[in-house]
Amino acid sequence: MKIIVDAHGGDYSPSEVIKGAALAFAKEKGFSLILSGSKERIEKECTAAGCDFSRIEILDAPEIISNDDQPTEAVRKKKNSSIVAGLKRLSEDTDAAAFVSAGSTGAVLTAAALLVRRIPGILRPALAPVLPTVKGTHVVLIDCGANPECKPVYLQQFACMGAAYAKAITGIREPKVGLLSNGTEEKKGNDLNKEAFPLLKQEPSVVFMGNMEAREILSGNYDVVVADGFSGNIALKACEGTALSMFFLIKEGIMKGGLRAKLGYLLLKPVFKEVKDAMDYNNKGGAVFLGLSKIVIKAHGSSKAKSIAAAILQAKDLAEKGIIDEIQRRLPAKEQLPGEPQ
Amino acid sequence: MKIIVDAHGGDYSPSEVIKGAALAFAKEKGFSLILSGSKERIEKECTAAGCDFSRIEILDAPEIISNDDQPTEAVRKKKNSSIVAGLKRLSEDTDAAAFVSAGSTGAVLTAAALLVRRIPGILRPALAPVLPTVKGTHVVLIDCGANPECKPVYLQQFACMGAAYAKAITGIREPKVGLLSNGTEEKKGNDLNKEAFPLLKQEPSVVFMGNMEAREILSGNYDVVVADGFSGNIALKACEGTALSMFFLIKEGIMKGGLRAKLGYLLLKPVFKEVKDAMDYNNKGGAVFLGLSKIVIKAHGSSKAKSIAAAILQAKDLAEKGIIDEIQRRLPAKEQLPGEPQ
Repeated sequence: MKIIVDAHGGDYSPSEVIKGAALAFAKEKGFSLILSGSKERIEKECTAAGCDFSRIEILDAPEIISNDDQPTEAVRKKKNSSIVAGLKRLSEDTDAAAFVSAGSTGAVLTAAALLVRRIPGILRPALAPVLPTVKGTHVVLIDCGANPECKPVYLQQFACMGAAYAKAITGIREPKVGLLSNGTEEKKGNDLNKEAFPLLKQEPSVVFMGNMEAREILSGNYDVVVADGFSGNIALKACEGTALSMFFLIKEGIMKGGLRAKLGYLLLKPVFKEVKDAMDYNNKGGAVFLGLSKIVIKAHGSSKAKSIAAAILQAKDLAEKGIIDEIQRRLPAKEQLPGEPQ
Repeated sequence: MKIIVDAHGGDYSPSEVIKGAALAFAKEKGFSLILSGSKERIEKECTAAGCDFSRIEILDAPEIISNDDQPTEAVRKKKNSSIVAGLKRLSEDTDAAAFVSAGSTGAVLTAAALLVRRIPGILRPALAPVLPTVKGTHVVLIDCGANPECKPVYLQQFACMGAAYAKAITGIREPKVGLLSNGTEEKKGNDLNKEAFPLLKQEPSVVFMGNMEAREILSGNYDVVVADGFSGNIALKACEGTALSMFFLIKEGIMKGGLRAKLGYLLLKPVFKEVKDAMDYNNKGGAVFLGLSKIVIKAHGSSKAKSIAAAILQAKDLAEKGIIDEIQRRLPAKEQLPGEPQ
């Protein structure tokens, strides 16, 4: 199996990306990497990181799309960028199962949607990160930003894709699906949610638990949280921001708290580390762009080697588990779909 | 000044509500309360709490609207409930400046919108809680649930009301206003946000900082966060849920961590208490339902005496600061408003 990795993606690329590749090689066998980016830089970094060159192919694509570039324009103009060339290769190479990037989210989503074929029947691919819960389980949040404006049927498909993904990563055969809303009652929600509710309720391939509040996202009571990309993004970032704010406040309290607090911190250090690891969803890989006929993973822009390695192994794992087939199996029958052009 | 309090509102009513009233009396002079609810229960609880009866009037309204009642129906049918009778009194009594309830949010918002006159020009009142920030300042989140479906001009008005409110509570003359979106770039957002953006940009009575991510809500970089009621509710609940989840995980880690962790906890107890107090926005009062010609405050359903007292004193403070006039002053000139019927 081949996995394509964007060597120039992320704040610490290419060096941390290549170190991540080396780390992934050290952890697991049975796959090789196509590193997309400047051949010269990649060779240098691979040598420095002690990468196994027999498991690497370099796709020379030295152009770089940065976070400051306007995604659509950059994807159109920079054909020889690590992102565009990498995704083009993904779409053409039958041995390539996945593409991993920590680069510009907008550019990755735009290029992937443009270059990689959708699973037949899927109207809109969606971005799905996996968050930790207080029960130690995981929850899939879908969509968290690819589709700021949605139709009800998109949410129905997100539910199907989310359930397939949750099954692949947790092993739960019938994942519990909640619809993110501003209250738990059936009548709560904006117009989109009210129209999506009956579609999810009727959908035979998901176990629909009804509307849920954002307070419940990390509760472990749901395996999949369905949202339009706008609200899903807000939920994700609010969780992230609050966790960071709390760590900041605790740290500040310790700094101000004198010797007593510093001693307390030393004793509680393992607990803080555990909580920090539990809350850091980047440790476990990236957000998958679900709905395409191949696996595309967007790792966090601030990913270091460990997170890149996690995203690579996550891609391998999902490919081995046949996530694409599982999504296809759960899709609403084609005749049920409204006649939107594919 | 008279403030009307829903004696039957909240999980711990009426006893904690009455204790809250007694606490507010002990803290400040210059106001009296109209307690709405069952006369018999209120008299009994007031005696138990040692309330100053000279500062109390009882509005006998023994019917109770619970969280299980469908709000619109309950408001229509239970005319003699503590919520409906209390808000009717607010609308009719020129001495009454505010209404405070920890009861059903839906019922309070429905009854208030129905019974209390809107500020002329306001199209939709909005619910605005105040959240703490990591800088020790406060941020107004508007709307957080009253209007799940919004038009762009509503968001423009939320910005004006939010700025007036932020000024009243923080003293900052020109509060910084952000539009909650799925990215910071001007072109980010769903259709609603994209249409609201230029309206906020042109609005002379607010300092508009552009689009902001939910990650920034607690950063202290904004004084007002503008959102439609659906996304605002999701942001609020996601922050709340994450904070609770983290406290839960830390507590669990301490319980499992043996003697070392327990000792660490004892030493860090003051720090944890400080962070918990800082994050607990209910300590500082309730969410104000802005846009009405009188002050309506919704305290958290789980409010105990301390939170009720805070909400009562918050109502007094806002009335003294002339929040209604301040909102009126900042409203877009009437001729700028589209011709929606009032």
